[in-house]
Amino acid sequence: MRKNTERSTVLPVAPTRGRLRPLGLDEVRITGGFWARRRQVNATATLDHCRDWMERVGWIGNFRAAVEGRIQRDRRGREFADSDVYKLLEAMAWAAAGHGPDSSLDAEIAVLTDTIAPAQEADGYLNTAFGRPGQQARYSDLEWGHELYCYGHLIQAGVAQTRARGEGELAKVARRAADHVCVAFGPAGIEGVCGHPEIETALVELARATGEQRYLDQAALFVERRGHGTLTDPEFGRAYYQDDMPVREATVLRGHAVRALYLAAGAVDVAVETRDENLLAAVVRQWEATVARRTYVTGGMGSHHRDESFGDDFVLPPDRAYSETCAGVASVMLSWRLLLATGEPRYADLAERTLFNVVATSPAEDGQSFFYANTLHRRRRGTVPAPDAESPRAESSLRAPWFAVSCCPTNVARTLALLPAYLATADDQGLQLHQYADAEITTSLTGGDTVALTVRTGYPSDGTVSVRIDRSPERRPWTLSLRVPAWAAGATAWLVDPDGVRRAVAPGTAAVTRRFRPGDEIRLELPVTPRWITPDPRIDAVRGTAAVQRGPLVYCAESVDLPKGREVDAVRVDPSVEPRDAPYAPQDGIGVENAVLVAGGPVVHREAGDAPWPYESIAHSASAGTDTGESTGIVLVPYHSWANRGPSTMRVWLPTAKSFTDDEAGR
Amino acid sequence: MRKNTERSTVLPVAPTRGRLRPLGLDEVRITGGFWARRRQVNATATLDHCRDWMERVGWIGNFRAAVEGRIQRDRRGREFADSDVYKLLEAMAWAAAGHGPDSSLDAEIAVLTDTIAPAQEADGYLNTAFGRPGQQARYSDLEWGHELYCYGHLIQAGVAQTRARGEGELAKVARRAADHVCVAFGPAGIEGVCGHPEIETALVELARATGEQRYLDQAALFVERRGHGTLTDPEFGRAYYQDDMPVREATVLRGHAVRALYLAAGAVDVAVETRDENLLAAVVRQWEATVARRTYVTGGMGSHHRDESFGDDFVLPPDRAYSETCAGVASVMLSWRLLLATGEPRYADLAERTLFNVVATSPAEDGQSFFYANTLHRRRRGTVPAPDAESPRAESSLRAPWFAVSCCPTNVARTLALLPAYLATADDQGLQLHQYADAEITTSLTGGDTVALTVRTGYPSDGTVSVRIDRSPERRPWTLSLRVPAWAAGATAWLVDPDGVRRAVAPGTAAVTRRFRPGDEIRLELPVTPRWITPDPRIDAVRGTAAVQRGPLVYCAESVDLPKGREVDAVRVDPSVEPRDAPYAPQDGIGVENAVLVAGGPVVHREAGDAPWPYESIAHSASAGTDTGESTGIVLVPYHSWANRGPSTMRVWLPTAKSFTDDEAGR
Repeated sequence: MRKNTERSTVLPVAPTRGRLRPLGLDEVRITGGFWARRRQVNATATLDHCRDWMERVGWIGNFRAAVEGRIQRDRRGREFADSDVYKLLEAMAWAAAGHGPDSSLDAEIAVLTDTIAPAQEADGYLNTAFGRPGQQARYSDLEWGHELYCYGHLIQAGVAQTRARGEGELAKVARRAADHVCVAFGPAGIEGVCGHPEIETALVELARATGEQRYLDQAALFVERRGHGTLTDPEFGRAYYQDDMPVREATVLRGHAVRALYLAAGAVDVAVETRDENLLAAVVRQWEATVARRTYVTGGMGSHHRDESFGDDFVLPPDRAYSETCAGVASVMLSWRLLLATGEPRYADLAERTLFNVVATSPAEDGQSFFYANTLHRRRRGTVPAPDAESPRAESSLRAPWFAVSCCPTNVARTLALLPAYLATADDQGLQLHQYADAEITTSLTGGDTVALTVRTGYPSDGTVSVRIDRSPERRPWTLSLRVPAWAAGATAWLVDPDGVRRAVAPGTAAVTRRFRPGDEIRLELPVTPRWITPDPRIDAVRGTAAVQRGPLVYCAESVDLPKGREVDAVRVDPSVEPRDAPYAPQDGIGVENAVLVAGGPVVHREAGDAPWPYESIAHSASAGTDTGESTGIVLVPYHSWANRGPSTMRVWLPTAKSFTDDEAGR
Repeated sequence: MRKNTERSTVLPVAPTRGRLRPLGLDEVRITGGFWARRRQVNATATLDHCRDWMERVGWIGNFRAAVEGRIQRDRRGREFADSDVYKLLEAMAWAAAGHGPDSSLDAEIAVLTDTIAPAQEADGYLNTAFGRPGQQARYSDLEWGHELYCYGHLIQAGVAQTRARGEGELAKVARRAADHVCVAFGPAGIEGVCGHPEIETALVELARATGEQRYLDQAALFVERRGHGTLTDPEFGRAYYQDDMPVREATVLRGHAVRALYLAAGAVDVAVETRDENLLAAVVRQWEATVARRTYVTGGMGSHHRDESFGDDFVLPPDRAYSETCAGVASVMLSWRLLLATGEPRYADLAERTLFNVVATSPAEDGQSFFYANTLHRRRRGTVPAPDAESPRAESSLRAPWFAVSCCPTNVARTLALLPAYLATADDQGLQLHQYADAEITTSLTGGDTVALTVRTGYPSDGTVSVRIDRSPERRPWTLSLRVPAWAAGATAWLVDPDGVRRAVAPGTAAVTRRFRPGDEIRLELPVTPRWITPDPRIDAVRGTAAVQRGPLVYCAESVDLPKGREVDAVRVDPSVEPRDAPYAPQDGIGVENAVLVAGGPVVHREAGDAPWPYESIAHSASAGTDTGESTGIVLVPYHSWANRGPSTMRVWLPTAKSFTDDEAGR
C-alpha cells in the first residue's frame, strides 16, 4: 500500500487508482445557489444543533462517565451513540477545511477530542457501552453491539482531520483504535464481523491516508468474512446484516439498507486498492439490480419499516416508504466510489437524484430538524414534534429535532460539509463536472498545468450551466466534460462551445476538447421543463399513477396547496396535459421555488362510512354513487421542500383519472 | 352478576343478555363438508402437533423447571410462552366436548394441568417468566411482560373446562389466578393494565361462568383504565397497545391488531353485562370504520410488519399485508360478540369472510404447519421451512410447523374446536342460522319447546343450503332465519319455503315463520358464481387491479397454475369478461376445488436489467419496448388453498390490462 499523495490532501475519498481522480475541498468551492444555502445553514446551525443535543441527551457525557467510572450507571442512548459524536467530528473537520487553521471549529474539535480521548483504553479499545465493570464484555455481541461500526465513524473522523489539518489528536485516537482492531480481529484474532458494516470503508481510507497496508488487509478480511455465517441468525433473517452470502456472490443489495450500502462502499474501496476486478464487478452488478428494481423515484432506498431493509424486487410502496436519510447518504457514498472507479456518468446521475430528493429533503430550512424516514406519501397531517424531546425514528409527519436513534442529522451534516468534493474530478485528459452548482474550481492537470474555472448556474431551477475558463495552459489542449443527466432523455440538451457553436447532446457525457483560453465559456443547456413520469408496471404500489419531475427534482402534491379542507388522497391528474411552471405566491411567509401546475383536481370521495365495505363487485358498483371531480388544476412543489409549511398530507405519485378501475365515472 | 344458566352450558361466549342467545357445542354438531374436514384434522393432528412442539421447545417444561427451582437457568421461549400451553388446553377442552367424558383428551388435559398447577404460587400468581429468584420481579414490566395476557388465556381454558366438563382442576387453577388478579390489580391494587389486552374478555366470561361480580368489575376496571397513560411510551407509539385514548373515545381500531381486537372483544363483553350502551356504541363505531377502511378483502387485519399494527385508513398493501392469523381469530371473536349483542347480520358476514379466507388459510391440509402472516401477494418462491426448526413469524413463503412466537397454531386450534358454536343462535322468535355447513342442531325455544333441524349443503362450493326440520312444536309458530350474505349483492338469492314457494331475497336476513312440521324443508339458494371485485379508489396499493370472489371465497393466481417459468407478476386480466368455473385437474396429487378461469394471460416483461431505471417520462416511454401478452386465460384457485403445492408465487389482486399507465401497448 502506498500513501495517496495526490495533489489535494482534503479528499473524503482518495483511491490510489481508478478511472477518475477526485478533487479536494481545497480545489472546489461552492459559491452560491441551492447547495451553498444548505451548506451555510449546516455550518452555522446544524453542527451546533447536533452538539447541543448530544450534550443534552448525554451521548457526549457518556465519555466523561466512562472516564469517571460511573458509566454503568449513567450511560445514555443506544449502543451506537458514540458513533454520532464521531460523525459530528467528521462533519466539523470537513467544515473546518473551508476556514483558516484556527477556526472555532478547530477549537470545538479539540474540546470534543479531549472528552473522548481519555476514555480510550491502553490497548486502543474505545466504546462507552461495553467492557467496563458492570457492562457487557467487549465484542460479546457482535450482532448488535456496533463496536466496530463506531470505530468506523471514529476512523472516518480521524481521516477527515488528517486530510483537513494534518494528523492531530483525534486522528491519533482513531489510529490507535484501528491498530487495536487489526490485532483483535486480524488473522490471529476474533474471526468475526460487525453486525453493522462501516469499518470496511473507514479502514481503507485510513490505509490511503497513512500508506499502512495492514488497514487495507483488515478491511479486505472483513469484506471476505461476511456471508459465511459468523453472526447468529436474527429474527429478520441473515440477509439483514448481509451475512447470507459472500459479497462477491450477491446479485442485488438486500437486508438493512444502510448496512448493505456501507458494505458495498467498503467492498468497492477494497476492490479498487487490491485490483480485485471480480469484487468490483459484483458490486456493480448489485448496484445495477438495486437501481433497476429496488429504488424509489427519489433515489431513496429501503422499503421496509420493520427491519429498515430493501424489499423484494419492485416492492416500493410510497406510503410505507422507509427511504432512510442515512441510506440516501450511503447510496451517494457508494455511487461516488463507483464513479471514481469506472468514470460512468450513471453513478453521478443517481447521486444527483439522491442528493436533491433524499439528502436535501431531510433537514428543515433552518437545519435544526430532520426527516429520518422519507415517505413518498403522507396520508395524515402530523402533529408538531416537541422541540425538546427525542422523536421516534420512523415517524414521518414532520421533521423532528432529534431521534432516539439519531444517525441521520449527523450523517446529513457530514455529507453537506464534504459536498464540494462530489462536484468534479480530473483525469489525464482533463476535468469532469458531475454535479452543477455555482462553484470555483482550481486544480492541476496531469503534468502540473494549473486550470481554474468558474461555474455559474441557477440549477436546478434553471437548466443553463455556464463554465468560464479562468486559467488554462496556453498550448496544451485538454478536455472539459460535462455530465448530461439521464433525466434529460426525451428532451434535448444543448452544448454551446466557446465559439458559440451549439450542438444537441445526449444523456451521458458532453465534452469539449481544445486549447482553452481564459475567458472561454462553455454552456450546457438542460431541459428543466416539468414532465410526467410513469412507473414500471411491475411496481404494483403505484399502478395507475404518474409523478412529475423537473430537472433532477421530484415533485409532490401537498395539502397546503389544495383547496381548503381537501387532502392529497382526493387528487386525480390528467397526464395527457403537459405540466407547466406555475407562478406561486409564498404562503405563510415561506417561499416555494419552482412550483408546477398540472391538469386535474380533487375528487369528492363518498364520506367515510357511506361504503361499509371497500370492495365491490363490478356489476354492483356500476349502480353505486359517483365521485364528482373539479378540474381546478393542482399545484405541485419540489419534494424536498415539503412539510415546511405546517402539518400537511403529501404524495408524489398521483392517481390518473383514466385508470381502469379508478374511473370516477364508472363507480 | 347472575350466573348464566342458559340451557346449554357448553358455550364459548355466554352473555346474560343481548339480542341473540348462542347455542352450545352440545346443541350444534358439524357433520360434514369444508369445516368438518378441518375440524377432523384439527382434532386428530393439530392438537398433538402443538403439544409435541411445546414439549420439544420447552414451553411445557418451563412449568416443571419452575417447580424444580431451575427456571432462571432453563426457561425457554418468549415471555408469553405460557399462554400457548393455555390456548392448547382451551382447544382440548372444546374438542373434548364432542366426546364422552373420559376421552383421551380429558386425560391429556389432566396431565398438562398436573404440570402447570404446582407452579402456581400460594397467592394465585402463576407465570414462569417472572417473580422467582433470578427472574425479574412480578409485574415489573407490564408493557411487555404479558403476565395478565397469560392469565387471560389460562382463564379462557378454565372456563372451557368448566363449560365442557364442570369445574375441574384446570378451572380451579384459573380461578385462583383470577382471584389473585382481582386483589393485585383491584381498586386498591396496582393501577395498571397489561401491554397486551386479553384478560378483559376472559374475566367477563369467568364472571358469566361463576356468577361472581368481582371478575366483571375487574374486567370493567381494566377496560376503563386503558388510554390513560399508565403504560410507558413505546418506540411504536402509545397506540400500539391502545393506551393512546380511552376505549369509549376511540373512533377506529389502531395499533397492534391482535391487541386492538382482543380489547374490543372485552369491551363488548363488559358493555353487554353492565348495560353500557355508550361503550357498546363506541366499539360498533370502531368496527364500522375498521371494516370500511382498514380491512383486507380476505377479512385480514393489520397491514404493518413493523409493529403488527393497523395502518392508516386505506393503507392495505397486498404484498406487505401482515394480516396475522391471530388477528383473524380475534376479529371473529369480536364479530361474534357484536352479533350476539345486536343481531345484525353484517357481523356474521365479516366472520364468514375471515373464517374462510384467514383462519382456514393458516393451517396446511395436514394441520401440521401454519401461516402466521397471510400476505395477499407473494413475489418470490419461498424455500421449504425446516420441519424441525422454529421459523420467523413474518415469513410468508410457505406454512411452517412452528414459530419462535407461535401464537397462531394454538389460536387456530381453539377456533376450529369451538367452531360449531358460531353457526346458529336462538331468540324468542326462533332460530337463526349464521354460517352454513352440514350440521345437526337441537335446542329448545323460549318456553321449552324442542326444535331440531338438519342442514345439508355443499357450501361454499355450492350455493344451495337445505334445512330440514326434524322436530318442532306442533302448534307453535316460530321463525327460522337465514343470513343472506352481503357478498350476494348484485346477484339474486332465493328462498324456497316448505310449500315450494320461491322468492328472491336480499342480503341481510331471510326468514320463514310458520308452524313447522317434521320433514319441512327450507332451501336457500345463494349465487356462488365467480365475480370480479374492484377496490375502493382510495386503496392506492391495488389501483388498476381486480380480484375474484366466489361465494365467500377470495381467489388468487398461483404460479403453479401458470405456464411453466411464469410468475404471477406477469399476469394481466380482463375484467370485462366474466370469470367462470373451470374444470381443474389435480396436480401433484393434491386437488384444488372450484378453480376459476378468467380472461387474460401472462405478459413478457422486459428482462430485468433491460430497463436500468424503472421510471420513465411519458414522452420517452412511448418509444420504449412493448410488452407482449398471450391471452391464454388464467386459472385462479381459492386463496385458502394456496401454498399447498410447493413453493410458488401468488397474488389476489390482478392487474387489469386496461389501466392507464399499465397499458402494455402504451409503453
